[in-house]
Amino acid sequence: MKLEARLLDIQAGGRRIAILDDETASLLGAHSSDRVEITYKNEHLIAIVNIASNFPRNHIGLYEEISRKLEIEAGEHVEVQAAERPEALSYVQAKIRGERLRENEIKTIVKDVVERHLSDIELASFVTALYVHGLSIDEIEALSKAMVETGSILTFDKGPILDKHSIGGLPGDKASILIVPIIAAADFIIPKTSSRAVTSPAGTADRVETLCPVNLTLEEIKEVLNKTNGCMVWGGALDLAPADDIFIQVEYPLAIDPLLLPSIMSKKKAIGATHVVLDIPTGRGAKIKTIDKAQALAHDFMDLGERLGINVQCAVTFGEQPLGYAVGPALEAREALSTIMGNGPADLREKATSVSGILLEMVGVENGKQEAEELLRSGKAERKLREIIEAQGGNPKIEPEDVRVGDKKSEIAADKEGRVLRISNRSIAQVAREAGAPKEKGAGVVLKAKLGEHVEKGGVIFEIYAQRNTKLQAAIELAERLQPIGLSKKPEHRMLMDRIPTKTIHRKPFMLER
Amino acid sequence: MKLEARLLDIQAGGRRIAILDDETASLLGAHSSDRVEITYKNEHLIAIVNIASNFPRNHIGLYEEISRKLEIEAGEHVEVQAAERPEALSYVQAKIRGERLRENEIKTIVKDVVERHLSDIELASFVTALYVHGLSIDEIEALSKAMVETGSILTFDKGPILDKHSIGGLPGDKASILIVPIIAAADFIIPKTSSRAVTSPAGTADRVETLCPVNLTLEEIKEVLNKTNGCMVWGGALDLAPADDIFIQVEYPLAIDPLLLPSIMSKKKAIGATHVVLDIPTGRGAKIKTIDKAQALAHDFMDLGERLGINVQCAVTFGEQPLGYAVGPALEAREALSTIMGNGPADLREKATSVSGILLEMVGVENGKQEAEELLRSGKAERKLREIIEAQGGNPKIEPEDVRVGDKKSEIAADKEGRVLRISNRSIAQVAREAGAPKEKGAGVVLKAKLGEHVEKGGVIFEIYAQRNTKLQAAIELAERLQPIGLSKKPEHRMLMDRIPTKTIHRKPFMLER
Repeated sequence: MKLEARLLDIQAGGRRIAILDDETASLLGAHSSDRVEITYKNEHLIAIVNIASNFPRNHIGLYEEISRKLEIEAGEHVEVQAAERPEALSYVQAKIRGERLRENEIKTIVKDVVERHLSDIELASFVTALYVHGLSIDEIEALSKAMVETGSILTFDKGPILDKHSIGGLPGDKASILIVPIIAAADFIIPKTSSRAVTSPAGTADRVETLCPVNLTLEEIKEVLNKTNGCMVWGGALDLAPADDIFIQVEYPLAIDPLLLPSIMSKKKAIGATHVVLDIPTGRGAKIKTIDKAQALAHDFMDLGERLGINVQCAVTFGEQPLGYAVGPALEAREALSTIMGNGPADLREKATSVSGILLEMVGVENGKQEAEELLRSGKAERKLREIIEAQGGNPKIEPEDVRVGDKKSEIAADKEGRVLRISNRSIAQVAREAGAPKEKGAGVVLKAKLGEHVEKGGVIFEIYAQRNTKLQAAIELAERLQPIGLSKKPEHRMLMDRIPTKTIHRKPFMLER
Repeated sequence: MKLEARLLDIQAGGRRIAILDDETASLLGAHSSDRVEITYKNEHLIAIVNIASNFPRNHIGLYEEISRKLEIEAGEHVEVQAAERPEALSYVQAKIRGERLRENEIKTIVKDVVERHLSDIELASFVTALYVHGLSIDEIEALSKAMVETGSILTFDKGPILDKHSIGGLPGDKASILIVPIIAAADFIIPKTSSRAVTSPAGTADRVETLCPVNLTLEEIKEVLNKTNGCMVWGGALDLAPADDIFIQVEYPLAIDPLLLPSIMSKKKAIGATHVVLDIPTGRGAKIKTIDKAQALAHDFMDLGERLGINVQCAVTFGEQPLGYAVGPALEAREALSTIMGNGPADLREKATSVSGILLEMVGVENGKQEAEELLRSGKAERKLREIIEAQGGNPKIEPEDVRVGDKKSEIAADKEGRVLRISNRSIAQVAREAGAPKEKGAGVVLKAKLGEHVEKGGVIFEIYAQRNTKLQAAIELAERLQPIGLSKKPEHRMLMDRIPTKTIHRKPFMLER
């Protein structure tokens, strides 16, 4: 059927959606969510139908993803016909029924995901079915491989290629900004890609971006690696395992994360990693609550690594409070820079050298942690960080005070004397976000007391930084409501942890960053 | 944040979607799929955010569902702020985790569904979770009640109110067109609402529409009932249990139907039914494959009926071939009219009088089936049908040959001699749809041989009717490919039912109509 194209000049979030009126759709035999094949000149394309009853007859509304791909002008005609349901849909339905998927079936699904043949409804159902039924290690392997194959890969002619990754969820985790220079200073290659924040106050890409550009191409990454052995770049535009970005769009509103393993490991494989340390922050307020669960997850990561030809080891790390004191892109970058220069918090230094140490020992260095500490102490790691900053286009002479943080600041004081009994990762993250992070890079929170520390009544327990007064005010109000830091004279005076029913609805924390 | 409204002049299928560019969304702290509250004059409204990177800053794109509700003109400004996730989402997530939902939680979900606070992604995940985890009878009851409460209801001051419903999936099932007049002729009230076809070649509303208008309001239905005791109308615009229509939008692409029980029974409750017979077509090629499963489903329907204050009985009926000979709106209406006039196929007459008989016995009539047969034989049912047709605005003198069927026709002949061993409901339905049904009401299929009948080589096994030659041709080609009717000299010569692997992908048949 020939239809006149009406260009909507709007993007549909990457989706390929075409709009038809009821009558035209009915003549095509297409319902809402069915597919049509659109042909224009020599280009064929599958689109998902949305039906709009007030749309003009014999027209087809094209969102920009389609009109750009077809290179079509408004008013031109396209040939449209009903298309078969994509093959992947049969396998999605099999997964909904709880069947085990075979490698070629998973490949078909991932290919159809990347080619945007599946609707949000189908993707959401697939991800839900994966979450409910779980995935076998064979399925996880097949998903990881398919996700690698459907994207770009970094090929680098030297090796080994080291990498580290945190499963996420820990506010203030700027350890990568120390680990990458330590490993690179030890003459190993470490092409670290990371994400921007989605639900957290800062991703590593957001932090590093306050020191130097992070939006590099694969070619530019190679140049930086050739010069310095290390890089810290944003992975989002590199097209590494792009299926994952599409899955994330539906996982985010559902607050489920069944693809954690293939998501992380496909990106590691795509970047060519041969040796990877997975950091699993564990404890109350972290993604993984108990050491048992952390160990089980660690074994899954190692199994998967073996199947993908990657040597994996895991670090289960203390995750019951933010790492270091600073939370928010610029505040964290400043703290990382201070720490690599010798003046930072002990927990950050400890974690960075522990993870670096494991990585170094995996490639044959003895006493990895001491070696890492020595690279830090000697200033070699700092010089390497400055090399990397310069190679990525930043100012290598940057000092901590050059990192611009928010000029609006408020101190939150303790309303009683006591010891810090708990720090809510989630509440700290929410306050930092309310202050403007990650969008406003200078916004965030700086803790003034951490677990076990004693605070006087009226003493400052944390500071809020913002770039705008309205945001600062909103963050202060949220902080008063959430009380992110719990104080008590003695732990034995706080035996009640929860009561049911509560006055407020419990919302499960959900951090998608990984 | 004040944003300028840009009206998109397109409907979003009932969804309340607002478009923001990245920057504006980021300043609001809203990701794709998050909610914003839009305020204009005294109207507040929750919308789901879609992010379009090329959308102008400080603007908000409004689909027609929102702009109409707000009564806003292009260029006017609205106040927009981030909104909390709807409460229902916590319960959707609980269901994803496999938790049992409480009555008030289900009420909250259904209310948020009807108010369009949930996105397709969340709806799809909920429906998938229901399918995978199953529903307890308490959950089914709560869903049914919540679906009734969030819609309109028919209040009628006389009773009892009788009704019948088929769970669907059987092509050619025009029994309602006989049952409604039989019951009404027996002086009982039967306000039959039905759906149009979604995936089938004809819904009862499509069939009846070739005899008289079916798009009546609740007030008009009352008038027709007062005059005739019976009606046969389209339920789609009556706002009975409207949540169901929204669920169907996501069930359709997923080809799952976890809400079968609450969907059917909420509509029966909303119409005020006190006595209902559920027809469960059973067998190979039907929705329910075995009598065991039909019995289990029947007990669920009866349990649910008791909880809703509806007396329910079930009829498990033979579902391995189309009912009667005709498939397609006009062809079926014509066959129903012939049958009520005394000249129709035995299976249709038998099923109609069986179901009517059960209904009559439920309200105290003895020998219900004989009574129903007598109402048919005596012409009382026919006169009642004509009364109903007239009351709904049709021509009461209509004769079978007045029902216009497609004037393009092709006969499909047997390529060998044999007995009819199987008739694929699904393939017959597909051929009828390819010929133009249900949109082109005169299109469809007329069987010339049914199960067990003997056919000579070259004898006609079925006819295809269409309104356009292109459609007729397409249907003929499809029929040749699908071979909907299987012939064999002796059943014992066809022992192989399936082989694995097959040459073609098995697609599970899915009929959403119910």
